[in-house]
Amino acid sequence: MPAVVKGFSPPRLNVRLLKHVKTNPHFYPIILAGGRGTRFWPLSRKRRAKQLLSLDGKQTMIQQTVARLLPVAAPKRHWIITNDDLRAAILRQLPKLEPRQILAEPVGRNTAPAIGLAAFLMLRSDPEAVLGLFPSDHVIGDPERYRETFGQGIEIAAAGENIVVLGIRPTRPETGYGYIEAGAPDANGGLCVRRFTEKPDLAKATQFLVAGNYFWNSGMFLWRADTLTNALREHLPETALILEKIAAAYGTRKFGETFRRLYPKCENISIDYAVLEPRSAKGEGKSRIFCLPADFGWNDLGSWTSLHEHHARRSSPADGNLITAADSFTLNAKNNYVHAPGKFVATIGVNNLVIVETGDALLITTLEQSQDVGKVVKHLDEKKLKKLI
Amino acid sequence: MPAVVKGFSPPRLNVRLLKHVKTNPHFYPIILAGGRGTRFWPLSRKRRAKQLLSLDGKQTMIQQTVARLLPVAAPKRHWIITNDDLRAAILRQLPKLEPRQILAEPVGRNTAPAIGLAAFLMLRSDPEAVLGLFPSDHVIGDPERYRETFGQGIEIAAAGENIVVLGIRPTRPETGYGYIEAGAPDANGGLCVRRFTEKPDLAKATQFLVAGNYFWNSGMFLWRADTLTNALREHLPETALILEKIAAAYGTRKFGETFRRLYPKCENISIDYAVLEPRSAKGEGKSRIFCLPADFGWNDLGSWTSLHEHHARRSSPADGNLITAADSFTLNAKNNYVHAPGKFVATIGVNNLVIVETGDALLITTLEQSQDVGKVVKHLDEKKLKKLI
Repeated sequence: MPAVVKGFSPPRLNVRLLKHVKTNPHFYPIILAGGRGTRFWPLSRKRRAKQLLSLDGKQTMIQQTVARLLPVAAPKRHWIITNDDLRAAILRQLPKLEPRQILAEPVGRNTAPAIGLAAFLMLRSDPEAVLGLFPSDHVIGDPERYRETFGQGIEIAAAGENIVVLGIRPTRPETGYGYIEAGAPDANGGLCVRRFTEKPDLAKATQFLVAGNYFWNSGMFLWRADTLTNALREHLPETALILEKIAAAYGTRKFGETFRRLYPKCENISIDYAVLEPRSAKGEGKSRIFCLPADFGWNDLGSWTSLHEHHARRSSPADGNLITAADSFTLNAKNNYVHAPGKFVATIGVNNLVIVETGDALLITTLEQSQDVGKVVKHLDEKKLKKLI
Repeated sequence: MPAVVKGFSPPRLNVRLLKHVKTNPHFYPIILAGGRGTRFWPLSRKRRAKQLLSLDGKQTMIQQTVARLLPVAAPKRHWIITNDDLRAAILRQLPKLEPRQILAEPVGRNTAPAIGLAAFLMLRSDPEAVLGLFPSDHVIGDPERYRETFGQGIEIAAAGENIVVLGIRPTRPETGYGYIEAGAPDANGGLCVRRFTEKPDLAKATQFLVAGNYFWNSGMFLWRADTLTNALREHLPETALILEKIAAAYGTRKFGETFRRLYPKCENISIDYAVLEPRSAKGEGKSRIFCLPADFGWNDLGSWTSLHEHHARRSSPADGNLITAADSFTLNAKNNYVHAPGKFVATIGVNNLVIVETGDALLITTLEQSQDVGKVVKHLDEKKLKKLI
């Protein structure tokens, strides 16, 4: 990370103004919890995906996500979109939510159909509905700031055909994320979005970092439900039609069957590709897409390595070792991440390792190669070792 | 290991002559099983020392030791010397032996008193007794050759005041063992021992290896019981007197109490220091100590690293990985020793590691540093974490 980031400097949000978040009675958090999260194998499994794990504190990621939103939205206004493998576990983890609030996609169709369905559903009971889309497996260091930020987003989104995306200030030339290029500030307080950029190479990512007007796409969006359904009708008309039919069956006996039959016919596409990119092509300002820079200690915990970094930054152990165990002994060992709860762990003469132990599996890798654990899951898929997946 | 070892070349034993081992009705195997074996922590524990583990095949080390000796000595002639922590487990592992054959020292007093007690005990019922002393935790690759070798040793020992030690041909300049310097061959087929040499430095060990007439002291000895008791009376008179009293109480109600009360008064000394070294000072030939070179695939499995080498030599895995697990996946990983029975083990991008998992502990170290696991046990001793010791 460069010491000083030069170039374009977007205006800081006025924190004082946002101190007391106004709760909006039309605001519905839509939490996307369908991901499989193979990168945390062997802790994460098909029925115990990353969002269901306690990677940061006592609560699981999805419990933290809901808890962060409860001060601004009553439990009955939360909606979870997940899949059949995870639905039961999510219900158990979120006892304040009704079963009807947890929708299980019969098949994964990426974000556009999932979000679109939520929009059609909310519209049925609330024509003023504003949707907030939240990934269920990210860490937020400063929840108050987070609520302040999207509170401002809700106001911008509620005002009309605006789409608000929360952008994370880059702290390194990350090549694994999508970027948002921001333009001039709008009167509403957001930055006009120029374009969305897919995962860049290192040279481009470094340019983006130095330029200062690029933000990581957090996957957190705010828009009115009708803005979204209109956009889908424009950019994805067939899928919009299908989703409307599914939403119409909600609350009837036919819903389950209709959902299972029609949903697979939706296009398999992300909301970024389907709506945001074509819309941003209308040009800065005209697209009505605004970015709110976010400074609330965001971390997507994308791998064991980033989990190690996250905790090391927080607890700053002198030797860099983060050991979850009943007790431990360390000799000439540095910068290791060990997860073996309940065990006595002895580390001698090893560095930069990731060791994760569960009842049925043991992962042994390095901080450098921990992103390859997805290959273990691929292997298990191929060998049909279902118990381990 | 040098390709060719030059210099003195002791005569090879005539294998044909030894093919059919004569069983000697006066032969008693005395198996020393009092070691704690901390170097195999977390698998080895105070009550589950190395000799009670299955490190090489299905049988435990002590079961293998007894099984190797059964073709030449009926079960009733086997004696085990151990301690209170291990006695019950040894009884369970060796159901063919009577409880009275398993002696538990009240305190450890090194090898001289242990072996001496066995000699006084055997003499009571068999004045012709020949004792074979065998460590309980070594690997023997060729048991037939092993029986042939000490079969010859029994003949030499039975003939009079001779002491026979089995010497292992060095294959590397090992600094962790004691060495035997051999001289001219005797008419009895053994090599006259010139002297015993303690653990040498690397330069000396290399000299020994190249010279060709030095052998590793295997800890396996053969001698008549009366030769041993006479030697103890000469070199360790007070201890000899105590041991004689303890042996006299054997078979009576007083034995347990006598053993516990008197044994701690014995000198704490090895048989090498107490008898072999002073006796060898009498000079080659006069000392009546003979070495039988042993070529039966001996390995003392002194650490996780030597266990890895032992198995790697045997099974020759292309990537050098030795993984005890229910199943495994390996990617860019070489030369690792992993013990996690029942688990699925994934190793990615790691080399030369030693990872050992038990129900309550996890050891993470390297092949290079695995000898330091003793320090874990020392730490556990200090912290009085008895369950883990």
